[in-house]
Amino acid sequence: MSLLIVGSVALDTVETNKRRIKDALGGSAMYSSMSASYFTETAVVAVVGADFPCEYIHLLNHHKIDTSGLAVSSGKTFRWCGKYSCDLNQAKTINTKLNVFSDFSPVLSNEHKNSKYLFLANVDPDIQENVLNSVKNPKFIALDTMNLWISTKMHKLKSVFKKINVLLINEDEAKQLSDKNNIIQSAKRIMSMGPEILVIKRGEFGAMLFYKKNIFTIPSFPLENVEDTTGAGDTFAGGFIGYLSSCSKINFSELKKAMVYGSIMASFNVESFSLEKLSSLTLKEISKRFTAFKKITEF
Amino acid sequence: MSLLIVGSVALDTVETNKRRIKDALGGSAMYSSMSASYFTETAVVAVVGADFPCEYIHLLNHHKIDTSGLAVSSGKTFRWCGKYSCDLNQAKTINTKLNVFSDFSPVLSNEHKNSKYLFLANVDPDIQENVLNSVKNPKFIALDTMNLWISTKMHKLKSVFKKINVLLINEDEAKQLSDKNNIIQSAKRIMSMGPEILVIKRGEFGAMLFYKKNIFTIPSFPLENVEDTTGAGDTFAGGFIGYLSSCSKINFSELKKAMVYGSIMASFNVESFSLEKLSSLTLKEISKRFTAFKKITEF
Repeated sequence: MSLLIVGSVALDTVETNKRRIKDALGGSAMYSSMSASYFTETAVVAVVGADFPCEYIHLLNHHKIDTSGLAVSSGKTFRWCGKYSCDLNQAKTINTKLNVFSDFSPVLSNEHKNSKYLFLANVDPDIQENVLNSVKNPKFIALDTMNLWISTKMHKLKSVFKKINVLLINEDEAKQLSDKNNIIQSAKRIMSMGPEILVIKRGEFGAMLFYKKNIFTIPSFPLENVEDTTGAGDTFAGGFIGYLSSCSKINFSELKKAMVYGSIMASFNVESFSLEKLSSLTLKEISKRFTAFKKITEF
Repeated sequence: MSLLIVGSVALDTVETNKRRIKDALGGSAMYSSMSASYFTETAVVAVVGADFPCEYIHLLNHHKIDTSGLAVSSGKTFRWCGKYSCDLNQAKTINTKLNVFSDFSPVLSNEHKNSKYLFLANVDPDIQENVLNSVKNPKFIALDTMNLWISTKMHKLKSVFKKINVLLINEDEAKQLSDKNNIIQSAKRIMSMGPEILVIKRGEFGAMLFYKKNIFTIPSFPLENVEDTTGAGDTFAGGFIGYLSSCSKINFSELKKAMVYGSIMASFNVESFSLEKLSSLTLKEISKRFTAFKKITEF
């Protein structure tokens, strides 16, 4: 097994100025695994309720995503309901119902324990650490987190940071985590906590990679039509770690390409609601956008 | 004469969390001409009061900036007083005293009328048009404007836009001008008003160039210490048009380089207050940062 992803599965209700969708596939494990599936063999470990539509499992399997770690609990699937104003940068959460996700306690199969690449999407850092400790001999571990855990479980997060290779967070989280307003000062402080690689996601303004003493910075891929930015960060992470899982070795050059793949996967994702576009891409489209990205940034 | 710049000269009082400076050299014509002076012969047309310190004129002349168009009126120099919060992205204007700048009515010498490159920094579009009409045979005209003129003199601005080659504005101004929230849709609408080249400045998030059907997008140069962002946009414009003035022809390849030079000149500028750093650079430092910019963005 190549890449194992542990995270959430949600049924999202999303409203923008143009459209509203109800109970659409969402959650960090879904966006990231779908994104990664274009680059590598991917397995998910997550929990859904008995109401989870079979068609979504078929969709994952159609993309050769291993769903043997998708536990179906009695009860309802995690639900998130959000609304975007016209700028689409920040959703207002209308409500969150954790449902079966509130008791999420992942148990890994022997096959999953042998995963070489691991992406711990944003869940409680206690859970992240348990998973991390049960994977036998991982080659590369990526982790995401959020403001809630930075506020409430900083001690645990710091312990987890010592065991990972790359932390992927957004700019606000980086500032909160480091208590620094400048992004480079912020990155230095975070890397002193453990991760040798740091990715700071800046939404429509791109992303930055910090690796040892090196910096790599990219704008986002310019889009004329943005529909729904839900899951963009998870999609970025999936493309990033998915690409790295396909590399024979991880060095600065491959990390830079991983940043671009993460960014373009996110750019596809925001062009539609839910996983509509992300689940219907071709490798040719991805490759074409990679070339286009190079063209619009090279000088 | 190569590049003629028409704009404001101010004595700025600026306060940040770390430092306060009083009556320091500022204004769009100062930042842009100092920035341009590293690339090309530059002349300024502007007005100052009788209180304008001679040392600043010496500073400009030391950089071979032609100050023969700097009119010294009886009265006081334009003053701006602003304060930055810790994030340094947006100054709060404490007060503005136009003083002699309120009667600014530039008259060009014969030599200035023969300028090949023209940068009309942010002043009243009526003044911009007068200057534009008095330059005999310009090869390339760049223009900046601001929210005030978009709100109050849109008709005049639209008339000026038809006569220029490049418009440089910031993202908020672009959105206001186009009444579009998406940056590409915004750019298309603005270019339909006249300019065949559009630069949208995004502050710490970089800048975008639109040229015919082409897009070029860059992040900003990452900085660990930002002191004062006053004049960053004007410095960008000066580097951009200054570099272009030194090119034998203007094409997409040179425009892209001009964007990078604009960006790195702005990056130097924000590392100090007023023109402290901008006025003490070497060509070697600029060239070194250009190479560094390439390194951190290339993949």
